[in-house]
Amino acid sequence: MAPSSSPLRSTTSETDEKYANVKWEELGFALTPVDYMYVAKCKQGESFSQGKIVPYGDISISPCSPILNYGQGLFEGLKAYRTEDDRIRIFRPDQNALRMQTGAERLCMTPPSLEHFVEAVKQTVLANKKWVPPPGKGTLYIRPLLIGSGVILGVAPAPEYTFLIYASPVGDYHKVSSGLNLKVDHTSHRAHSGGTGGVKSCTNYSPVVKSLFEAKSAGFSDVLFLDAATGRNIEELTACNIFILKGNIVSTPPTSGTILPGVTRRSISELARDIGYQVEERDVSVDELLEAEEVFCTGTAVVVKAVETVTFHDKKVKYRTGEAALSTKLHSMLTNIQMGVVEDKKGWMVEIDSCQG
Amino acid sequence: MAPSSSPLRSTTSETDEKYANVKWEELGFALTPVDYMYVAKCKQGESFSQGKIVPYGDISISPCSPILNYGQGLFEGLKAYRTEDDRIRIFRPDQNALRMQTGAERLCMTPPSLEHFVEAVKQTVLANKKWVPPPGKGTLYIRPLLIGSGVILGVAPAPEYTFLIYASPVGDYHKVSSGLNLKVDHTSHRAHSGGTGGVKSCTNYSPVVKSLFEAKSAGFSDVLFLDAATGRNIEELTACNIFILKGNIVSTPPTSGTILPGVTRRSISELARDIGYQVEERDVSVDELLEAEEVFCTGTAVVVKAVETVTFHDKKVKYRTGEAALSTKLHSMLTNIQMGVVEDKKGWMVEIDSCQG
Ligand SMILES: Cc1ncc(COP(=O)(O)O)c(C=O)c1O
Ligand SMILES: Cc1ncc(COP(=O)(O)O)c(C=O)c1O
Repeated sequence: MAPSSSPLRSTTSETDEKYANVKWEELGFALTPVDYMYVAKCKQGESFSQGKIVPYGDISISPCSPILNYGQGLFEGLKAYRTEDDRIRIFRPDQNALRMQTGAERLCMTPPSLEHFVEAVKQTVLANKKWVPPPGKGTLYIRPLLIGSGVILGVAPAPEYTFLIYASPVGDYHKVSSGLNLKVDHTSHRAHSGGTGGVKSCTNYSPVVKSLFEAKSAGFSDVLFLDAATGRNIEELTACNIFILKGNIVSTPPTSGTILPGVTRRSISELARDIGYQVEERDVSVDELLEAEEVFCTGTAVVVKAVETVTFHDKKVKYRTGEAALSTKLHSMLTNIQMGVVEDKKGWMVEIDSCQG
Repeated sequence: MAPSSSPLRSTTSETDEKYANVKWEELGFALTPVDYMYVAKCKQGESFSQGKIVPYGDISISPCSPILNYGQGLFEGLKAYRTEDDRIRIFRPDQNALRMQTGAERLCMTPPSLEHFVEAVKQTVLANKKWVPPPGKGTLYIRPLLIGSGVILGVAPAPEYTFLIYASPVGDYHKVSSGLNLKVDHTSHRAHSGGTGGVKSCTNYSPVVKSLFEAKSAGFSDVLFLDAATGRNIEELTACNIFILKGNIVSTPPTSGTILPGVTRRSISELARDIGYQVEERDVSVDELLEAEEVFCTGTAVVVKAVETVTFHDKKVKYRTGEAALSTKLHSMLTNIQMGVVEDKKGWMVEIDSCQG
């Protein structure tokens, strides 16, 4: 390892150095492999026993597994944050655990228990502690997966499930500083009633890659999908929820099965109420979107991000962003809690040092 | 290996015995691992070079691959048949190759060329020749997969693709002899407009496992889905297409993006026309279904299978099955071509011995 003058790199020359050798300033939302991952397995009809921390690397899987053939998989996404006083904490992991359970029910899979999920996330973070970026430089993104492994030829629930957690230090999800430029997709949809849009199923993502890719090629940051039933109401982006602000009212589409119930969405709704906004979960039409004063997105990866413009057919609308925007206020309220700048009165943060390792 | 008196087992004691040691009579639709599989890889933006035949077994893949996280995968299904005079042939592999290309376009993946696909299927069959069941005992089911491999953290096209083919001797897909008992699912849908229902994406299958599982638990053979847009028209089953017969008219839903364009569907339409039926591809309402004289399903796995009953809410309708049914006639017309009992005047069958191996 090259010697580094930065105090953010290896603070000691021991192997138990505090930080991994990462160019923290250059982090984006890409995989930087860490040292360890967590793996547990369970047979159909049984429940997960404790898994173990193993070196991060490729996994071995049958070509005839349900994840490879039939998309039987769920993922989660949450983050570990390092505070100025060097505590490492994760944000509301119980919410991700519960969402994985809802998803598992929908896809006929066996999920880990809430306690198992949280403990496994903690172990994964602890094992990769030196990969948690210094405060202000980023976070450790944690990706739990629940996949149908084992061997099955026909379409049916998997004979075996693998619960795996990997992680990567990440920086900003979107490179734009001011705000997102969204394109409303008025031809394809992300989800339909009775489908899997309300759970974090892997099957919701590859189908939107084409729309996302086309929008990005045309210079947009992301795609905003409309509901498949009427084509009139906004739903969400490829990987985050959406809010609009008009007057004192913050509105966001309801979680009625076609959008993902985001943990950030729920937390931001609570924070907005805390500072006196009226928060409504209800159908939001494209017309309302185009007449909003402010629009913003929420998600673990994007945190809270202002939308600068929305393009719907030939119409392009610009919204308030920057210091005066509510989204800026909510962003700092949330990150202040996450980073330990203010006290966590809500009990959202979970310390990782308290676990057994 | 236990000695066997059956001429269908090891005809010689050499290692190049004609047949693998399989209890052919007991074959169902489950995986019997064969000796070899085919694997080829390709980087994004490049095209597939020739892959190779390798021993069948687990593959190694990154936890951070698009197939495991985002369901970026397509599969195909076709069969190899052994004729009485011991030729081994596959059915319309070009159709599967083309369908994989359409799917790859939809999921932003790089597919193998038509020639590569067909050649790879041939090589896979040739390498596993002794696993092709004796005539009348079953077929070798061939499963090509195209999956997003490589490493990518955010939702985007994969940096690498893996084209893999595995195979298994199979018998009947459904155990019922007389006909299928279908349940119409009037709450969840399989596909929506602008989605992936028209391609063989892995993302279309795990979402229907729950509906299928519930129907099977209630004694049904399979589920029939309705269109998500109106809920009034029939679409298809979890893994096969549907036809209805009334008078001289055979009708089947159109391939307008929400149902899979089945190779068997297309072939059966042609055979039905050949014997004087009028075949219509058009919206078919549930009402029409309930008033049909005959209903049947088509697919590589099910071949042509009569539907004995359809249950819609509390209504249960019974249809003609058995010797007098058109589906029985079409089944034998098709299998006679596949098994070489009649001459293949359509050029559907491809001999595998003619390839380089
Ligand atoms: C489709 C979709 N919507 C919304 C979100 C936001 O959810 P959360 O705030 O829990 O990260 C995500 C995931 O991050 C997502 O994939
Ligand atoms: C959803 C679905 N419909 C129909 C079919 C039938 O297609 P084919 O006749 O090409 O096998 C399949 C696959 O076999 C399928 O998965």
